[in-house]
Amino acid sequence: MFDDKYFMQRALQEAQRALEEDEVPIGAVVVSDNQIIARAHNMTERLHDVTAHAEMQAITAAADNLGGKYLTDCTLYVTIEPCTMCAGAIGWAQIGRLVYGAPDPKRGYTLTAPRALHPKTKVTSGVLADECAKIVTDFFQKQRDN
Amino acid sequence: MFDDKYFMQRALQEAQRALEEDEVPIGAVVVSDNQIIARAHNMTERLHDVTAHAEMQAITAAADNLGGKYLTDCTLYVTIEPCTMCAGAIGWAQIGRLVYGAPDPKRGYTLTAPRALHPKTKVTSGVLADECAKIVTDFFQKQRDN
Repeated sequence: MFDDKYFMQRALQEAQRALEEDEVPIGAVVVSDNQIIARAHNMTERLHDVTAHAEMQAITAAADNLGGKYLTDCTLYVTIEPCTMCAGAIGWAQIGRLVYGAPDPKRGYTLTAPRALHPKTKVTSGVLADECAKIVTDFFQKQRDN
Repeated sequence: MFDDKYFMQRALQEAQRALEEDEVPIGAVVVSDNQIIARAHNMTERLHDVTAHAEMQAITAAADNLGGKYLTDCTLYVTIEPCTMCAGAIGWAQIGRLVYGAPDPKRGYTLTAPRALHPKTKVTSGVLADECAKIVTDFFQKQRDN
């Protein structure tokens, strides 16, 4: 039951919360020993803060939960491929594993900062990619229609 | 009087505060219209948070001060070349100008993510570079000696 799809669904629930708050709908959870220890969604608009991406807040909350700044035994699930900033943070946190849903061919770190992660971090991409992409593309389409 | 050296001295004062708290001594200020609207230093140890770099906190504080997330009319002064994460944040914030002191040939964004900044951001490096580098190298030397 506790597989990558299960946890990506939880990240998608966070993205849904962002959507309800008119934020770009991206969500993240941090998992340790099959337990979710942090959940977050993008809050850049509400906080007027470009650094308030889902991943950044999830990393901060997870470290706070664990009482240490390194997340070597954790997996970060995020609905969209992290940007340069978030990949840099994931690198500093030495996260054990990164799982993301849809790629971001414009802003994704694999294009902008391909060596940002810690060398030991394992990466899985494409989990529920269609759902993860659709909620974002629908959001921007609706913005253009307004 | 209000030149780059003046504001870099203020950033160095922030680095000094970090040093007094046993943090890697890096400091930053954000300036708008020759006024410092945010000042911050590295707090990764105290907060157990890898995202608590001087630049990140300065950007968050400046945006909070201005009530908007873009810092297009601001200059960010930071004592050491920003890392991948911070350069990504500087890019998102569309900061008008970045001034840094000493280069970081290992972790600096010019190596790791050379296109992270907004194309319109102007960059000046090397302001008080020796002082900015010395406070950090002294810190790590002292750590190794202990």
